[in-house]
Amino acid sequence: MLKLYYAPGTCALATHIVLEEAGASYTTERIDFKSNQQNSPEYLSINPKGRVPSLVTDRGILTETPAMLAFIAQTFPKAKLAPLDDAFAFAQVQAFNSYLCSTVHVAHAHRMRGYRWAGEESSFADMKRMVPKTVGACFALIEREMLKGPWVMGESYTVCDAYLFTLSGWLEVDGVDIATLPKVADHRRRMAERPAVRKVVAEEKA
Amino acid sequence: MLKLYYAPGTCALATHIVLEEAGASYTTERIDFKSNQQNSPEYLSINPKGRVPSLVTDRGILTETPAMLAFIAQTFPKAKLAPLDDAFAFAQVQAFNSYLCSTVHVAHAHRMRGYRWAGEESSFADMKRMVPKTVGACFALIEREMLKGPWVMGESYTVCDAYLFTLSGWLEVDGVDIATLPKVADHRRRMAERPAVRKVVAEEKA
Repeated sequence: MLKLYYAPGTCALATHIVLEEAGASYTTERIDFKSNQQNSPEYLSINPKGRVPSLVTDRGILTETPAMLAFIAQTFPKAKLAPLDDAFAFAQVQAFNSYLCSTVHVAHAHRMRGYRWAGEESSFADMKRMVPKTVGACFALIEREMLKGPWVMGESYTVCDAYLFTLSGWLEVDGVDIATLPKVADHRRRMAERPAVRKVVAEEKA
Repeated sequence: MLKLYYAPGTCALATHIVLEEAGASYTTERIDFKSNQQNSPEYLSINPKGRVPSLVTDRGILTETPAMLAFIAQTFPKAKLAPLDDAFAFAQVQAFNSYLCSTVHVAHAHRMRGYRWAGEESSFADMKRMVPKTVGACFALIEREMLKGPWVMGESYTVCDAYLFTLSGWLEVDGVDIATLPKVADHRRRMAERPAVRKVVAEEKA
């Protein structure tokens, strides 16, 4: 049995959706960011980075969204959530996920978490001002070069779709007008109609 | 035949080492950052992100270090550069690589590339001051929790080792004293003795 530690509004949504799409048996536990539970001794014993998501498996604990998404796809091959028998196509999936975690999510994080990389209020304000531009540039590249359509990798739905849906859900707070990104907007609409996505989004909102 | 676009002093070193360790047939092309070649129309047609590394394969072009490292490990299975038949162990490899790209490399990048996330000189200086602390915290976690020894994943040398060696090579310029990180220092020493590492480092320095 798998157990996902998550917090609403975080990138843990991607793994949560993929567990549901995979038909996995799993439970969830919500971490309360308002009380800083992610830095409690109990949670740090699960994930010493003090971040979500974490995935408890019978072999040990996994962290880092791209690693978890590939793990779930490999563990539940019948769900066909990644091209597991084609190293190049699998690498394309991984390259997309890696871009989201190392560039897109990082650009977004400068809006509210500037204290990770600077110490002055003036720097935080400066970083915050830049977010619509940096996140906007990332998504313009996704729109133009990466999102093949209808799904990220083309005809096949993959773990990339759950991850993109998670990060494109932050566009509005990041000050990026989704109307400038018609393929991303269309992707969000189709994702929101999927039963697994509806179920998980409702659970995280409850 | 594979072709790696790289620049000296960048994270492309990890992929370069892994190609050599894999016994792959490959060529390299150096991108000149001083003349901003990474943003030339020619290079942007290879990698629209304007970053290195990029790996040209007979199926198309790959970007993003974690994706390339897993691709090379899967394409050259005899080199045993990742636990390919064990989804959980493979996920541990991927989680390590994902942490390096999304957290450690990002912390480092705030030293010289603050313009990616802010606009004011005062912010760049603020970010730069924070780098010894943020990169230091990342490597303290690697030392304490992640580097199993003698190699990152324990007894088996994997792609993680080339990636760690690449980023631990930046500790000195980032103002982190490697003497506080004995396992990382020992890892660097043993990496530097490997024939593949010696060959690639010499080529990048030439």
